[in-house]
Amino acid sequence: MPKRFSPDEYAAGVLSGNRVLLSRAITLMESTLPSDQTLAHEVMEKMLPHAGKSVRVGITGVPGVGKSTFIEAFGNYLLEEHGKNLAVLAIDPTSQRTGGSILGDKTRMETLSANPKAYIRPSPAGKTLGGVARSTRESILLCEAAGFDVIFVETVGVGQSETAVHEMVDFFLLLMLAGAGDELQGIKKGIMEMADAIAITKADGPNLPAATSAQAEYKGALHLFPLGASKWSPRVTVCSAFEKSGLAPIWDSVMEYVQLTQGNGYFQQRRQEQNLHWLRHSIRQQLEERFYQHPAVKAQWEDVSGQVTQGQKSPFAAAAELFRLLP
Amino acid sequence: MPKRFSPDEYAAGVLSGNRVLLSRAITLMESTLPSDQTLAHEVMEKMLPHAGKSVRVGITGVPGVGKSTFIEAFGNYLLEEHGKNLAVLAIDPTSQRTGGSILGDKTRMETLSANPKAYIRPSPAGKTLGGVARSTRESILLCEAAGFDVIFVETVGVGQSETAVHEMVDFFLLLMLAGAGDELQGIKKGIMEMADAIAITKADGPNLPAATSAQAEYKGALHLFPLGASKWSPRVTVCSAFEKSGLAPIWDSVMEYVQLTQGNGYFQQRRQEQNLHWLRHSIRQQLEERFYQHPAVKAQWEDVSGQVTQGQKSPFAAAAELFRLLP
Repeated sequence: MPKRFSPDEYAAGVLSGNRVLLSRAITLMESTLPSDQTLAHEVMEKMLPHAGKSVRVGITGVPGVGKSTFIEAFGNYLLEEHGKNLAVLAIDPTSQRTGGSILGDKTRMETLSANPKAYIRPSPAGKTLGGVARSTRESILLCEAAGFDVIFVETVGVGQSETAVHEMVDFFLLLMLAGAGDELQGIKKGIMEMADAIAITKADGPNLPAATSAQAEYKGALHLFPLGASKWSPRVTVCSAFEKSGLAPIWDSVMEYVQLTQGNGYFQQRRQEQNLHWLRHSIRQQLEERFYQHPAVKAQWEDVSGQVTQGQKSPFAAAAELFRLLP
Repeated sequence: MPKRFSPDEYAAGVLSGNRVLLSRAITLMESTLPSDQTLAHEVMEKMLPHAGKSVRVGITGVPGVGKSTFIEAFGNYLLEEHGKNLAVLAIDPTSQRTGGSILGDKTRMETLSANPKAYIRPSPAGKTLGGVARSTRESILLCEAAGFDVIFVETVGVGQSETAVHEMVDFFLLLMLAGAGDELQGIKKGIMEMADAIAITKADGPNLPAATSAQAEYKGALHLFPLGASKWSPRVTVCSAFEKSGLAPIWDSVMEYVQLTQGNGYFQQRRQEQNLHWLRHSIRQQLEERFYQHPAVKAQWEDVSGQVTQGQKSPFAAAAELFRLLP
């Protein structure tokens, strides 16, 4: 059992910006021990009044798009040019099928991780998406309480985690490579429609013409989508982490988005909806865990679900049958 | 209490293609009376071995796109040129915000509803999406058992029902209007990415150039999306229900899709996944209904969810608090 502090010790440490306490508090949020969860809730209640004052940006893209190089360049730009305090929360994919490890990437964000105004925290590969979602969401709030005014939440754009991240950030940035074709195959359907901005990376040297032409194509494509409730038209830009070019327009987009949506009320409304979303999500998750872990259900599941899959039993009749097994 | 038959009477009637018994069986599936649900499950178990042998096509588009006119023209084309037996299941939107009523539209499909090889069934506005989904899905199976080899499931492309319909059909057809702009605003984000084909309607007379140019735009846009697991590239065509033109290419797309996906195994695999999806969906729905209808939860819900929405309580702590209210 790792060392634990009192709720007041965690709270005081986080609020004073103490990195060690912040990291310990995040570790506490990630814990699945029942005793830790009670403590985590107590710490969180103390933090909530101090949270909420950041811009939360989700950043995603397939491996190979240059995500950590981009985050390092973009992060340094925000620290140097805008005087921001930046926290980067990286969700490690639970599946290993993509290869690239975010924990490995961390060491590549060398200048950023050495900067005292930046804080980089990889989430360990969680066993459940729900667990990752919960601890990441609470980590955002802790970082806000610790004084960070920009939060990046980074994912690999191939799994389910993007939808979860989309539900916890204000702005969703999708990194894409020019040259389309095979690289695109890795992006999950539906992710492009969540994007508030698309940035074509590696737009430098001989890649520049392809990047500019991809930019025009994506602009045309996004133009066909209807505006969402935010009334924001997604932007498409090109950038180069290597040349440190094209970073200002991306941050300008974020700021314009915030101004627009704070003006029309969407910003606050969406955060409130996100709060409610996570309440319902958490309830659903616990309900399903209780159901599928029930011994009577576990004993019958393989048999019943097999019959349903094969079309021998109606899903609705099968569900009713399983519910009859419960007290 | 409406007249009920025995499971064997329903089964024999449906299998012989008796329209009256088919309609009564669908009404039984739509019933929420507990006694009816037991009977419905028994009927369904008898029907399952006879179901599954149709092509299931979801058709959606915003009001004004000419959905019923299209379905009438396309349906008549299938009956006359391909000798098909067609069932049209129309999901009436639960919300009234779009105006147009599908029940009203039904009377507009005059020639189709007069044809003995076609069967048109509007689903009444359901109280829950889950209820609509259950009865529509069971209705598909009943129509298959009654010998219909093409099933259309029609929705208005503005609500949640499209995702549900997408999970019960083989092929998803999106109807769009040329002229983009405001008409597009009605289409919900994410629907375009579900489409296996987009048909630009009203491509006749002075509208033809705009329709052809919209076709090129959508082709370009869809090209940017990655192929899904089906390996199918979505098609974009133009058509006119008025001139009865452009209908053959749409049906060709459906047939090519079926051939491709039956060949690569995706067709059967997807139907099996859909079966499992509805089992899990049905379980989830019943779990949530039990939870949110529990008197202790109902008594606290407004208070707790309000605190969560306002950011005064963490969603995860609030969920835990609500669970402590339950036995």
